[in-house]
Amino acid sequence: MPIHSRCSGVFAPVVMPFERDLSVNARRLVGQCKWLLTQNVGIAVFGTNSEANSLSVDEKIDLLDQLIDAGIDPSRLMPGTGLCALPDTVRLTEHATRLGCAGVLMLPPFYYKDVSDDGLYRSYAEVIERVGSNRLKIYLYHIPPISQIAISISLIERLVKDYPETVVGIKDSSGDWSNTKEMLDAGWDDFRIFTGSEKFLLQTMRNGGAGCISATANINPAAIYDLYENWQAPAAESKQQELMVLRDLVQRYPVIPALKCIVACNSNEPDWLHVRPPLESLGKSLRDALIAKLTEMNFHMKGLHDGTQ
Amino acid sequence: MPIHSRCSGVFAPVVMPFERDLSVNARRLVGQCKWLLTQNVGIAVFGTNSEANSLSVDEKIDLLDQLIDAGIDPSRLMPGTGLCALPDTVRLTEHATRLGCAGVLMLPPFYYKDVSDDGLYRSYAEVIERVGSNRLKIYLYHIPPISQIAISISLIERLVKDYPETVVGIKDSSGDWSNTKEMLDAGWDDFRIFTGSEKFLLQTMRNGGAGCISATANINPAAIYDLYENWQAPAAESKQQELMVLRDLVQRYPVIPALKCIVACNSNEPDWLHVRPPLESLGKSLRDALIAKLTEMNFHMKGLHDGTQ
Repeated sequence: MPIHSRCSGVFAPVVMPFERDLSVNARRLVGQCKWLLTQNVGIAVFGTNSEANSLSVDEKIDLLDQLIDAGIDPSRLMPGTGLCALPDTVRLTEHATRLGCAGVLMLPPFYYKDVSDDGLYRSYAEVIERVGSNRLKIYLYHIPPISQIAISISLIERLVKDYPETVVGIKDSSGDWSNTKEMLDAGWDDFRIFTGSEKFLLQTMRNGGAGCISATANINPAAIYDLYENWQAPAAESKQQELMVLRDLVQRYPVIPALKCIVACNSNEPDWLHVRPPLESLGKSLRDALIAKLTEMNFHMKGLHDGTQ
Repeated sequence: MPIHSRCSGVFAPVVMPFERDLSVNARRLVGQCKWLLTQNVGIAVFGTNSEANSLSVDEKIDLLDQLIDAGIDPSRLMPGTGLCALPDTVRLTEHATRLGCAGVLMLPPFYYKDVSDDGLYRSYAEVIERVGSNRLKIYLYHIPPISQIAISISLIERLVKDYPETVVGIKDSSGDWSNTKEMLDAGWDDFRIFTGSEKFLLQTMRNGGAGCISATANINPAAIYDLYENWQAPAAESKQQELMVLRDLVQRYPVIPALKCIVACNSNEPDWLHVRPPLESLGKSLRDALIAKLTEMNFHMKGLHDGTQ
């Protein structure tokens, strides 16, 4: 993939492995990323579901270096780099760009609320000007249920107009199809629109979208990719419905701990259960119930290993 | 003030001076802090109104060092140290504790929403255990309108019970007097309750509170301190009402830019106008209107200088 191309496909906000003492285990992260790549799924590390905002910038820089050192292709990497403080966002974005990452997924600064579109425009513009690289490709990250900061259609329009070669896409995690549809209908030139949930993958593809970046891609990558790849096939509708069975099950639990429980079980590495506060691991009864359901469904993460191979 | 004492009085979340290029100007910060101290107001640097979450941890550590080097008494310092990522909170809190700061004002991690009290308890407990110093004095920071993460009465109760010498107070910026009153009525031993607005200062003092930590203390410190000091005097009611005139004026504008506009005007340093994105400086017409009102009120920040004296 040439450096300046734009992304499409299925990406996973890779779950983050911690030790019991809450330090990061880079070996297990590499293992999960390599497995995802074998399933044709790209690496949106440091997303919401990666507990990215529970990691320091230093930890993220170190992990990016370790992923590259372990042979992960940077053209398959779309790390999350949007933080509250401008110098932090610039530092992490610069590092990711220097490593050759295909793009970055960028939250708006999310502490101050009720900020204006002008203020958000200036946030993104300052980052772009300070990084100052034509290799930088930004995918905006719209996730108002968590960030509480919306990225409006008119803000996108302004950024795309002023930085057409840099602001090249968005992940819409609003959970609101009408918002995704409005973006898809806007007709911004080669703008890559990812749905934040495979729930809307078929609709997104039918309307000219680029794919999805979804938590569930951590555990069900091949099936999600299969729908992405074959959205025009007659079986697409039924594939879409099949995807929802696993998604609906996971959504009945706190999602991040549930994903980690499933990875822990399938990789036979119980340390995957650890989360950093303020999140909590699933308790034993919830874990048992979830795993029983998955066994009933004959669910298995084929080929998942622990990163040592 | 001995190191292990608890805080009371009036504190200002000191506004943060930036240059045109958005770098921090430590000289002007020192000047503002020294002026506040002459007005009997303590230094709650890195509060919400300090644009603290628009600064990196490195910037905050450097600024704390510069404040101490400039002769600011650490026993008058209550820096904000609560961040999203556990390692960041631990690092900044450790540094503030090592410098001998009287206390730290600690936000809960604020990215992930709908987190449980157990998760928040674990966040605070991990910080306390990792810092591992009996000099650490934590003032919890309850500001749900911005952080979107509430600190419940039962969470406070648990923390005070398990860490009675460390979790020693709270700033209540809920804007909800009934919440402050419930805390004041709880009867936690020597627990220091600060209201987040001088609007409730008299009520807070009458109910056994410790004082206030308020944005407006940046520009009106002497009058707020006067009410704090003389809350039992007959004139207290009218002093409380007088405080509200300036506060109500400032609240009609975006508060942080308005405070900076007032400091800029009174110190004759227009660079005080700069804010980091996503905030925006006041435009000229808003500035003119605000300053005209203040002139009409014969408002002046007596003795404010630019930090060079």
